[in-house]
Amino acid sequence: MFAELDTPSVLIDMDITENNVIKYQKYCDRNNLELRPHIKTHKIPAIAKLQLSSGAVGITCQKISEAEAMISEGGIEDILITYNILGPAKLLRLRKLADKVNLSVVADNSECIRGLSETFATASRPLPVLVECDTGSERCGVTSPEAAAVLAAEIGCLPGLTFKGLMTYPAAGQGKKIQEFLESAKFLIEDAGQSVLVVSSGGSPDMWKADMVPVATEYRIGTYVYNDRSLQSRGVCGWADCALTVLATVVSAPTKNRAIIDAGSKVLTSDLFGLTGHGHVLGQPDLKIDNLSEEHGRIISESPTGLFVGQRIRIVPNHACVVTNMLDSVILVRGKKILGLQKIPARGKVW
Amino acid sequence: MFAELDTPSVLIDMDITENNVIKYQKYCDRNNLELRPHIKTHKIPAIAKLQLSSGAVGITCQKISEAEAMISEGGIEDILITYNILGPAKLLRLRKLADKVNLSVVADNSECIRGLSETFATASRPLPVLVECDTGSERCGVTSPEAAAVLAAEIGCLPGLTFKGLMTYPAAGQGKKIQEFLESAKFLIEDAGQSVLVVSSGGSPDMWKADMVPVATEYRIGTYVYNDRSLQSRGVCGWADCALTVLATVVSAPTKNRAIIDAGSKVLTSDLFGLTGHGHVLGQPDLKIDNLSEEHGRIISESPTGLFVGQRIRIVPNHACVVTNMLDSVILVRGKKILGLQKIPARGKVW
Repeated sequence: MFAELDTPSVLIDMDITENNVIKYQKYCDRNNLELRPHIKTHKIPAIAKLQLSSGAVGITCQKISEAEAMISEGGIEDILITYNILGPAKLLRLRKLADKVNLSVVADNSECIRGLSETFATASRPLPVLVECDTGSERCGVTSPEAAAVLAAEIGCLPGLTFKGLMTYPAAGQGKKIQEFLESAKFLIEDAGQSVLVVSSGGSPDMWKADMVPVATEYRIGTYVYNDRSLQSRGVCGWADCALTVLATVVSAPTKNRAIIDAGSKVLTSDLFGLTGHGHVLGQPDLKIDNLSEEHGRIISESPTGLFVGQRIRIVPNHACVVTNMLDSVILVRGKKILGLQKIPARGKVW
Repeated sequence: MFAELDTPSVLIDMDITENNVIKYQKYCDRNNLELRPHIKTHKIPAIAKLQLSSGAVGITCQKISEAEAMISEGGIEDILITYNILGPAKLLRLRKLADKVNLSVVADNSECIRGLSETFATASRPLPVLVECDTGSERCGVTSPEAAAVLAAEIGCLPGLTFKGLMTYPAAGQGKKIQEFLESAKFLIEDAGQSVLVVSSGGSPDMWKADMVPVATEYRIGTYVYNDRSLQSRGVCGWADCALTVLATVVSAPTKNRAIIDAGSKVLTSDLFGLTGHGHVLGQPDLKIDNLSEEHGRIISESPTGLFVGQRIRIVPNHACVVTNMLDSVILVRGKKILGLQKIPARGKVW
C-alpha cells in the first residue's frame, strides 16, 4: 500500500476533499447561508482556493500568522480572524494585513476593542468588527445579548472601527439556544440604530443542522473538508467521506494481540474528543489503537490482530485539524494514485 | 512579564536546564551508570552538547531524522536509535548515518534484524544492535528473557551486525521486575557465548531509583532536562526545577470564574499523562486549565480568577517533550533575562 511512500505519512485524498467541499457548499446554497471555511483544518492556500472557487465567500483564520500564510500565494481576498487580537506586535501586523485583504475580526471585550480602535484610527478604511457571543460553549464571547449590544455600541462609536455583526462558536446541539441568543442580540443592536450585516455561526458537528439557526447569515466550518473519526462517530459523515488518513507501518508485533505502529502522538496527537482510542484503522474495525507515545502507536485486539511487521495500515485520526499541524507536508492522492507532496504553509502558526 | 515577547511563546530557562543536567549526571556518576540522554525533550543540538560536555556518553534518538538533525552542526559522535528500523528508504539513510557517527540501534524482531543485516553486510564495520526487551510497559520489546537470547543469537550470526546488549523502556515503578528480566536475559546470552556490553534502561519517572536496577550499565532519559508537571506530580522534581514554561496572554475574561488564554493544544498539546487539566499556572495553583481547543486555553477557578485581559501568565505543561514539537523555536532565558531565539532543528522529525 503506497510502497513508494515512507511512513508515517499523512495522505489527503483530493477526490474525497473535493466532494466534501462541493456537498456542503450545496447545502449552504440551499439554506441561504454564506460559507466561510476555517482553514485550520487544511492550512493550505490551494485548498482554500478550491473552497472559494466552489462558492465560499471568504475564509476564516484563528491567528494573524495563519492569515499571513494563506495570502502568501495570492488569490485570497477576504479573511475573518475569529480571535481577540491584543498587544502592539499583533496589532501592527493586523494593520498591515488589512492593507492587503478585506479583513474583519471579532472581539468580546472593551480592552480588545480599544486596542483595535487605536491601531485603525489612522487607517484609510475602518476595520469591521463582529462581537463574539458565547451561546453555550463557555469559551470566549459575551455571555448575554445585552452585553453584545453594549459592545456593539462601543465599536460603533470608536474611531477606526465599524460594527459588522455577531459571531458565535456554538457548542454542539444547541440550535434553539443559539437562535434565541443571536436573535435577541440582533434586535437590541438594530433597535439602537446599527445594522447587523452578518450573523456568523459554525462548527462541523452541527453542519447538517445549520438551518436550525435561521438568524445566521454565514457558516464557518473547518473539519468538513477532510472529516475525521470524531465526526464519523457523531453520524456527520461516513468513513468513505474521510479524506485525511495516516499511513503507518507495523514495526513490532510482540504478541498475537498487540502490535506497534510508527505513528504516535507526534502524528495522531492525543486529542480524544470524548472517544476511546486514538483513531480508526480503515477496514479493520476490530483493531483498537489504545495507547500512544510520541513515536509509537499501540494496537490491541481481543482476537489476534493478524498484523505482521512491515505491514502498512491507514488510520482515520480522531481529529483531522490537529494532525495537519504536526508535519510540514502532506501527500495528496486520488484513490491509490499519488499526486505528490503538498507543503502546509500555515502549520504551527500560533501568533 | 517578558513584555518584548509575543505570546504564546515557549521559554527555556538555561540556569534551570544546566542545573538539571549536572544534578542527574552526578547521580549517574555516583551510581556507576552511563548517561545517554534522549534528545526528544529538547530536540536542540546545543543542549545535547551541554549534556555531553557534562559527562553523557552519547545521545538517544527515536528516529533517523532526529539523529540527522542532531549531527547537522557537528560535535555529536555517538547515537543510539531506540527504534526498529524497517524498509528500504530508512535502511539506506541508516547506513549513511553509520558512516558519520558511532551508531547503534535496537531491534525486537527477526524481520527488523534481517533488514539491518542485509543493509550492513557490505559495510566497513558491523552495526551494533541491542535487543529491546519488554519488562512491563507492553509497547515494543521481546516478552521473555528466552526470546531475548534467541534474538541475540540471531544478531550474532548474521553478517553486518554485532550484538551489543539489552535495552528496555520500562514502565514506571517496576525496578525489581526489570532487574530480574534483564539479569536473566544477560545470563542466557552470556551462557551462549556472547558478551552483553550494555544494559540500557531509562525513563524520567524512576530517575532517582535507577540504582534499583543494578544490572543496568546505562540510563536513557529525556524529560529530566526540562522537567514538567507530570514529573512534579510524581514527586520527581519541584516547580523550581521546571525549565520549560509557556508564556501566554489572557485574551478574554468573560466571567469572574473563567478566563481564556492564547495557548491551546497547538502549544500545550492534549497529553494528560493521567493528570486532570492541561498545565500548572506558576504561582497560581488555584487556577485550573480545564479545557483546550487549538488556540484557546480555558482557565477556571472556584473563586474569582483575578485574571484580566492582557495579563500574562506562565504555565508548566503536563509534558515537556511534546511541547517542543509544536513550535519551530523556543526562547532561551536566564531568570528574567532573555538570551534569544533558539531554533528546534529536530522538531517534527517522524521518519
